[in-house]
Amino acid sequence: MPTVDTLAALVKGRVLGDGTRVIEDLADLQSAGPAHLSFLANPRYVSLFEATRAGAVLVASEIPAPHTTLILCDDPYLAMARIGAHLHPSPSYETGIEAGAVVHPSAVVHPSATVRATCVVEAGATVGARARLEPGAYVGRGAVIGDDVLLYPGARVLERCRVGARSILHAGAVIGSDGFGYAPNAEGERIKIPQVGIVELGEEVEIGANTTIDRATFGVTRVGDGTKLDNLVQIGHNVELGQHVVMASQSGIAGSTRLGSRVVVGAQAGLTGHIAVSDDVMLAARAGVTKPITQSGVFGGFPAKPHRQWLREEANQRAIPELKRRVRHLEKNLDDDGPRN
Amino acid sequence: MPTVDTLAALVKGRVLGDGTRVIEDLADLQSAGPAHLSFLANPRYVSLFEATRAGAVLVASEIPAPHTTLILCDDPYLAMARIGAHLHPSPSYETGIEAGAVVHPSAVVHPSATVRATCVVEAGATVGARARLEPGAYVGRGAVIGDDVLLYPGARVLERCRVGARSILHAGAVIGSDGFGYAPNAEGERIKIPQVGIVELGEEVEIGANTTIDRATFGVTRVGDGTKLDNLVQIGHNVELGQHVVMASQSGIAGSTRLGSRVVVGAQAGLTGHIAVSDDVMLAARAGVTKPITQSGVFGGFPAKPHRQWLREEANQRAIPELKRRVRHLEKNLDDDGPRN
Amino acid sequence: MPTVDTLAALVKGRVLGDGTRVIEDLADLQSAGPAHLSFLANPRYVSLFEATRAGAVLVASEIPAPHTTLILCDDPYLAMARIGAHLHPSPSYETGIEAGAVVHPSAVVHPSATVRATCVVEAGATVGARARLEPGAYVGRGAVIGDDVLLYPGARVLERCRVGARSILHAGAVIGSDGFGYAPNAEGERIKIPQVGIVELGEEVEIGANTTIDRATFGVTRVGDGTKLDNLVQIGHNVELGQHVVMASQSGIAGSTRLGSRVVVGAQAGLTGHIAVSDDVMLAARAGVTKPITQSGVFGGFPAKPHRQWLREEANQRAIPELKRRVRHLEKNLDDDGPRN
Repeated sequence: MPTVDTLAALVKGRVLGDGTRVIEDLADLQSAGPAHLSFLANPRYVSLFEATRAGAVLVASEIPAPHTTLILCDDPYLAMARIGAHLHPSPSYETGIEAGAVVHPSAVVHPSATVRATCVVEAGATVGARARLEPGAYVGRGAVIGDDVLLYPGARVLERCRVGARSILHAGAVIGSDGFGYAPNAEGERIKIPQVGIVELGEEVEIGANTTIDRATFGVTRVGDGTKLDNLVQIGHNVELGQHVVMASQSGIAGSTRLGSRVVVGAQAGLTGHIAVSDDVMLAARAGVTKPITQSGVFGGFPAKPHRQWLREEANQRAIPELKRRVRHLEKNLDDDGPRN
Repeated sequence: MPTVDTLAALVKGRVLGDGTRVIEDLADLQSAGPAHLSFLANPRYVSLFEATRAGAVLVASEIPAPHTTLILCDDPYLAMARIGAHLHPSPSYETGIEAGAVVHPSAVVHPSATVRATCVVEAGATVGARARLEPGAYVGRGAVIGDDVLLYPGARVLERCRVGARSILHAGAVIGSDGFGYAPNAEGERIKIPQVGIVELGEEVEIGANTTIDRATFGVTRVGDGTKLDNLVQIGHNVELGQHVVMASQSGIAGSTRLGSRVVVGAQAGLTGHIAVSDDVMLAARAGVTKPITQSGVFGGFPAKPHRQWLREEANQRAIPELKRRVRHLEKNLDDDGPRN
Repeated sequence: MPTVDTLAALVKGRVLGDGTRVIEDLADLQSAGPAHLSFLANPRYVSLFEATRAGAVLVASEIPAPHTTLILCDDPYLAMARIGAHLHPSPSYETGIEAGAVVHPSAVVHPSATVRATCVVEAGATVGARARLEPGAYVGRGAVIGDDVLLYPGARVLERCRVGARSILHAGAVIGSDGFGYAPNAEGERIKIPQVGIVELGEEVEIGANTTIDRATFGVTRVGDGTKLDNLVQIGHNVELGQHVVMASQSGIAGSTRLGSRVVVGAQAGLTGHIAVSDDVMLAARAGVTKPITQSGVFGGFPAKPHRQWLREEANQRAIPELKRRVRHLEKNLDDDGPRN
């Protein structure tokens, strides 16, 4: 078990108090005990900090703490992420193809990869070094799974799609379902347009549980390196997401829309098809984007507008009752009954 | 086959008409025939009641019915639920571990449980008495499945999560996916925060098809006894739901939010993270809750507000054209061209 | 490989330029090369057309094109769909029941059907001619899968539900989960109402990835011929969808609502329960329908209203600041301080 001093060194932190204390795990301020390291990243939680029983706490600035040891560091939240990864290394697994897995003879599975029971790996697929396919995961014909990729139970990568190294697909995620494309004929019937493109995920991408990403009609639906999608997110065909994009749960993007890098999409937000959104744009929860966004900033509402404008319009709405009173007052003073309808 | 008298006794109902009639099944008023029992729970459907061919109808108050037998009872809808359970008992299944299921030697499966083909039960997991795991269900390492639990095809309970007795998980539900937690570093990259907590479902919980519940970062994401979630619902990490909560489809809750008991969440509603909502609150469909709600009542809109206020604001908006007319009229009477911009 | 002339004949098009050119595949204007056929369906993309390197382009009207061959046809988008189907015929598969599939002895699987490894087909189920069940697909007891149906990996058709000929179910789709029906008792507990009906999908229906359709409480949840649902859509119990309905992703319909034929539902739209919507209605993205719609037209907003009215109300909101200025001006001119609160 590491000491406070060891963990502080990991994050270049300075210890105030007893650095020899042994730390078993991380915990939040409220539930932490003497063998836990906790963190204070949000000033809102100062009262929890004051009452915590944690053995040590990561903080950003000196703060009176007679009751616990402090690790002073630049970014307690980030430090907590780093220490968490240190305390919870990926467990080691038996490698190889488990009995009950179905791997086509023409698929190439790296000997250090793990393919669990009830997985299916189809003809011509490739599974990289140290990749791990949990039960029920599926790799379609000619699909490529990079090194160190983790497919949770029932994650599915369909025909010819590609997953970059160190990416994580959560349970039930679907990569490469058909794009939603039909051409209406004269009778109002919808003729299916064959969806022959693929999906390509970059490196260190994370895809949430039951999230769906459609393959391109032609070409590639693309997700950039380091991009993270939450659960139940929908990505339409031919969408392109930049690097380090974050999309919260139940948000969705219609076909052929392009997001720059580091875009943040709030929960239940939606973007129409065939538009572009610049780098570093932040969309509030529920934002409904109907037009291109060509400069960074915070946007919200439906149709989405700059956040400040959105707040002003909200305030304006609340002003209507007062306006009514004032007009009524003017009418009275003028002995005016208002317009005849 | 039971008679009307038998079924009436089950729900402490009073029979008006022929109680000896044999009832084969329940049906709605429109499609029911002489061997069906139907129900009238909503006055809207009185005309369907008058035209029904049902052999008997559950009603809350006496109503002229020369054409059918009545069962008078307090709550026809509830009575219908009780009689339905009586007429459709759970079928009996072969118990035990079917060929083609994969159960780790260290897992403990009760002899009266059923584990179907293509299920996987991992090391250290426990499956209770009379539990039934349909094909493709998954129980992770150290997970606990209570007595009489039903996992539909492809329902997944990941590592160390716990499901209380008599709960039902529908097809494709995911319990225990990683919480969506990252710490941004200076380069705008997102460093993953290990998600080491669990999900704990109480007793008689029901989780809809393809609904996702994230495990806590630390600690427990908790769902109280009797709580029911519809399809495609998202529950973030460290959320706590009280008892007998109901959430309709496509609603979602961000991380660390707490709901009291008997809260009802409408379809496509959403709640931000880190807030608390009191017992007995009802959220309309599409409500977007951005702040704590500290007293019971009905709330709607986005940002969510008391239902009455929401309706008033909607009405105010519709008043704008009239206001414009009245101001124009005042300006004309005063020979006033309005302000110069 | 077909020539331009061959493909033009397929869609009754007229060739302007070199009809002997060989075409290998379709591509969009931007990425097409000399062996690709592309299409111009949207005038927005004329500049891409002018710069394209495509060997031939489907167009609706003559347009100067010294750089490429044209195929003149009525509807380039529809023509592209038809040619795509010609160039990408369904691959042929080995038929029969693969090792590792689990098929109950009482199920009837047509000899020309394909049942892949890790599929389960339950007692009394029927699988039609040339149907294809990809790995992890599930067919419940007594369910009926029509001729030429395609179930993608992990698509699930539960007990007694029926899928019409030539339908496609994408990965993770769930057909026949329980309807969300509970009767509250006096203690605020929710008593489950047995869901004993089924789901019936017509012919040439397409159901998106991880979309969920609930079985009827009694009777049938019905999806008409040719109807297409995108990913992550929710259909409640006893809903009825007409023919050739289209629902974009993350939209949802509550129980017992009926849609006419050719209704189009935008992404993230929602419809309340127990209402009817006429043929040929179009709902904008995010529309929230709370009342019946009895005539065709375009509707949007929440609560949904005719599109034109919705736009007018949006414009009215933006008029509030100007109204405030005008009222202030009137007050000043009258030396009026406004009403005292």
